[in-house]
Amino acid sequence: MYKINDNYLKLPGSYLFSTIGRKVSKFTEANPDKKVIRMGIGDVTQPLAPVIIDALHSAVDEMAHQETFKGYAPDLGYEFLRSAIAENDFKARGCDISADEIFVSDGAKCDSGNIQEIFAADNKIAVTDPVYPVYVDSNVMAGRTGTYDAAAGTWSDVIYMPCTAENGFSPELPSERPDIIYLCFPNNPTGATITKERLQNWVDYARREGCIILYDAAYEAYISEEDVPHSIYECEGARECALELRSFSKNAGFTGVRLGYTVVPKDVKCGETSLHALWARRHGTKYNGAPYIIQKAGEAVYTAEGKKQLGEQVAYYMRNAHTIHAALTDLGYTVSGGINAPYVWMKTPDGMSSWDFFDFLLEKANVVGTPGSGFGPSGEGYFRMSAFGTYENTLEALERMKAL
Amino acid sequence: MYKINDNYLKLPGSYLFSTIGRKVSKFTEANPDKKVIRMGIGDVTQPLAPVIIDALHSAVDEMAHQETFKGYAPDLGYEFLRSAIAENDFKARGCDISADEIFVSDGAKCDSGNIQEIFAADNKIAVTDPVYPVYVDSNVMAGRTGTYDAAAGTWSDVIYMPCTAENGFSPELPSERPDIIYLCFPNNPTGATITKERLQNWVDYARREGCIILYDAAYEAYISEEDVPHSIYECEGARECALELRSFSKNAGFTGVRLGYTVVPKDVKCGETSLHALWARRHGTKYNGAPYIIQKAGEAVYTAEGKKQLGEQVAYYMRNAHTIHAALTDLGYTVSGGINAPYVWMKTPDGMSSWDFFDFLLEKANVVGTPGSGFGPSGEGYFRMSAFGTYENTLEALERMKAL
Repeated sequence: MYKINDNYLKLPGSYLFSTIGRKVSKFTEANPDKKVIRMGIGDVTQPLAPVIIDALHSAVDEMAHQETFKGYAPDLGYEFLRSAIAENDFKARGCDISADEIFVSDGAKCDSGNIQEIFAADNKIAVTDPVYPVYVDSNVMAGRTGTYDAAAGTWSDVIYMPCTAENGFSPELPSERPDIIYLCFPNNPTGATITKERLQNWVDYARREGCIILYDAAYEAYISEEDVPHSIYECEGARECALELRSFSKNAGFTGVRLGYTVVPKDVKCGETSLHALWARRHGTKYNGAPYIIQKAGEAVYTAEGKKQLGEQVAYYMRNAHTIHAALTDLGYTVSGGINAPYVWMKTPDGMSSWDFFDFLLEKANVVGTPGSGFGPSGEGYFRMSAFGTYENTLEALERMKAL
Repeated sequence: MYKINDNYLKLPGSYLFSTIGRKVSKFTEANPDKKVIRMGIGDVTQPLAPVIIDALHSAVDEMAHQETFKGYAPDLGYEFLRSAIAENDFKARGCDISADEIFVSDGAKCDSGNIQEIFAADNKIAVTDPVYPVYVDSNVMAGRTGTYDAAAGTWSDVIYMPCTAENGFSPELPSERPDIIYLCFPNNPTGATITKERLQNWVDYARREGCIILYDAAYEAYISEEDVPHSIYECEGARECALELRSFSKNAGFTGVRLGYTVVPKDVKCGETSLHALWARRHGTKYNGAPYIIQKAGEAVYTAEGKKQLGEQVAYYMRNAHTIHAALTDLGYTVSGGINAPYVWMKTPDGMSSWDFFDFLLEKANVVGTPGSGFGPSGEGYFRMSAFGTYENTLEALERMKAL
């Protein structure tokens, strides 16, 4: 008999957001008259900006005529998009990243799940705790994480770096040396950021210890403060030890459009082997390029009009974040995040567990958030509120919480 | 120092179509005045059908308004598309496949590269020879193929099933028992098909021997003869031992649009473990759904008008295939395929190697085909001509070959 990849069987329960989805479905079925407000999953609610809509229509029209029809895209992305990315997201910030170091994809979730494939199975990973579940789960599936301790909620071969109120939700350098370090700033789920100085420490550590950093900057557009790096390539030496993952989901509302990219600088080498060549081979063999019409929509993000319209969209969500932060603070909750990120991270009241607070909020206020413990053991006793709802729903959810 | 997945280093040279691309670029740079006709890569050339264009525009408009905007898609695909697929591609042919056994993706290349992840590393794969390179290369990357014999062009731990003129390009049951069997009919690259009786033999063999069949039916729309199965689920018992991969690339011209799906029947079980649950977990963890606007375009494929327009598109390419088949036969070449598939498989003249014939044709006729040896050792001495060009270019390419 053929054999399955039994690493899959080690995964506890189902993916966090599937569990939330099921709980919410069950509640709405039982309470069809209640209007549930969703502040759980980080999904956007504002329609695509006019500049994006125009770009999509125009690209669709190109597909209707033989002279302008596009078949297979270049595996790594169209030059027009890779250039726009290199120019605007990197060179404009003084980061030395060129167009041919950009790998366009259908989203950062896929990239962050797939990127571990180019590393050996016996590398040891380090993740922040709490953490975006995909980093860990994709390594579980690859057999890289050892055994699961259900009571502790941890894997034996994973190095956890707690992010707590005590360290300002910014991880300390680990005492045990990892091979692969996952970092995400602005952070999902805590909404915390990292200073340039602290990020430089990580880059220095990785170079000294021979680690690779997988840097997820999906929420970069939400940075509002100075001294918060927008890219890891603002740090000296990062071209030698870091890959960066980016998304169009949150800065341009592309959660249902699907576009992202990964930066693999040509200087990242493991011995003689260029990671750029490995990821190119992976893309060429197992991926077939992002749709032309969607890459054209991505290009529109970088036009002057695109920057203006999307800046307004980000500001819309950040008004939500500030409103949530202020209201919850007023209600006496302990709150962080929401300044440089679309997530507010709150402590649950009265020592309630994360899932108990989830159930409580769903039942009493019909508001859905995300239990902090779903992101890791150090998330227990915390709760994530997303700012991606409409302003009206955000206000109503806060009113309901006030009335509790 | 972290370690890379050194299975990647075992891969010989680059992906077949990248090599072709480089050779063609070099030729066109050196000969800017020559008009090269591309009949190599299986990329379509006809614009998207009006019904598809309308569906795309309409879905783009939905994304422009808050009430109809769509964020994250369901991981496994929208119900409207999964239902249309189950109804039209399966139930209409008497195949017992339900909507929730359909997993929508961004294309069959991704699915056929990723599907091996849910199986253990020590399974043994069997592939036809010649074969679509992605099946083998994705298994090389996963460390499942042993060592490469560069002289023979084969991997030590892969079972090769030769498809030659002698067996009508339809593989015999292997003498050594494999765990995972890749089959593709209508076949890429040979254009050959399989009778329902012979496919039933494969299903019976898989059930008897405890194998799983990964059945690639990406070219199903090109079947013109009776007794050629459109789906493996036309065979009795296939629900217990086969997954099927499908693409919208060739039946609807979606090579640059990106849409495909994989069927995982709930009856496929390895011991107690349902492969349906494993693939759902893989999708949920490492994939974020196909774009809404593209799933709407997929839905349009199954409307009455869509079927009519796309039937005409397939007929257009099949006229090319018949023209190529007839012209090459007239020129004295030994030719197969092109009846139920958009590929014509020809024997190179005078015992030339596949790559020698590639170079000869590129230089003397400025026509690009695909060297059969790129698909495996039994492809040596063969050459694949694609019918996906325009009719005018197809005629011109054949005229040039006649003049040689």
